[in-house]
Amino acid sequence: MSKTTHKKIDSKGFTVWFTGLACSGKSTLADALVPILKKKGFKVERLDGDIVRQSLTKDLGFSVEDRRKNIERVAFVAKMLTRNDVVVLATFISPEIGMRDNARKEIGNFVEVYVKCSVEGCMKRDVKGMYKKALAGQIKDFTGVHASAPYEEPPNPELVVDTEKISIEDGVKQVLSKLVELGYIKP
Amino acid sequence: MSKTTHKKIDSKGFTVWFTGLACSGKSTLADALVPILKKKGFKVERLDGDIVRQSLTKDLGFSVEDRRKNIERVAFVAKMLTRNDVVVLATFISPEIGMRDNARKEIGNFVEVYVKCSVEGCMKRDVKGMYKKALAGQIKDFTGVHASAPYEEPPNPELVVDTEKISIEDGVKQVLSKLVELGYIKP
Repeated sequence: MSKTTHKKIDSKGFTVWFTGLACSGKSTLADALVPILKKKGFKVERLDGDIVRQSLTKDLGFSVEDRRKNIERVAFVAKMLTRNDVVVLATFISPEIGMRDNARKEIGNFVEVYVKCSVEGCMKRDVKGMYKKALAGQIKDFTGVHASAPYEEPPNPELVVDTEKISIEDGVKQVLSKLVELGYIKP
Repeated sequence: MSKTTHKKIDSKGFTVWFTGLACSGKSTLADALVPILKKKGFKVERLDGDIVRQSLTKDLGFSVEDRRKNIERVAFVAKMLTRNDVVVLATFISPEIGMRDNARKEIGNFVEVYVKCSVEGCMKRDVKGMYKKALAGQIKDFTGVHASAPYEEPPNPELVVDTEKISIEDGVKQVLSKLVELGYIKP
């Protein structure tokens, strides 16, 4: 997937797709961007697992097949919003290259941000105790912990934010700079 | 459900929800409205079974439970679009009062249009031969044909368009007049 595939459709909208392990910092980054982008005049929607799994995908679990369906449905919603001038900040582990590339193709204006953090780093921030439960076998198919659920690093994302090395503030700046560079927002 | 529940949210967007039997004229009406509303400056999305069942709800069949899930997911998408200033023209048989009322509550700016046509009238327009197949038992749970799939008429829709009595052109005019009356569009 080449970086040149972004900015395909004629819309003010775009989707920033944050991918990475649980507790890598995806939601923290996206949440911090909401008021900044709203202040710039954009309509903004957050899409994340907690939101969509209450309604759109409440029938789905965390198997590979269900994760793919989850991302497919989210991509449909993001496509609809993006082509209607809305900025979508989507935060999903979305562990497979294929599912992310499908989302990219469907949505068009797609900015993939790999929120990079080692499993060990994520475990240190394990606010909900999910890694603990996964290691104890109380959660199955936990990405990055179980062999059944590997995380495929993006080979060519628009941006990598390494949250073990930089602060959230700097991560937000990196995303904004990238959006300026790609022509989605003004400086 | 009272008529006074429309126009709940602060958005230029609204959803016109066309409900009625297969071949009653829902899609014909909605399709005719698209260019008119676009010309008025609105962003418009059409949501119908053919669109969403290819992606968002492709895992679903036509059982009562699956129809409910189908409408739930569509309502989620319509809500997202409606609150971001988009006009949604949704055409779904949506046979149950309950599923439509749930959609109304979720979406907010919701205009229910009952596209009224008797089963006999719909059968005469059976362009895809669906009623024929349903009567021959080749399609199960066909709304209005099989006892397993009744159609619950809306007790209090914003508008009834009786397509056995009036032309599509007049139906379009009725919808536009209602949208003016409700304050969604200007004359």
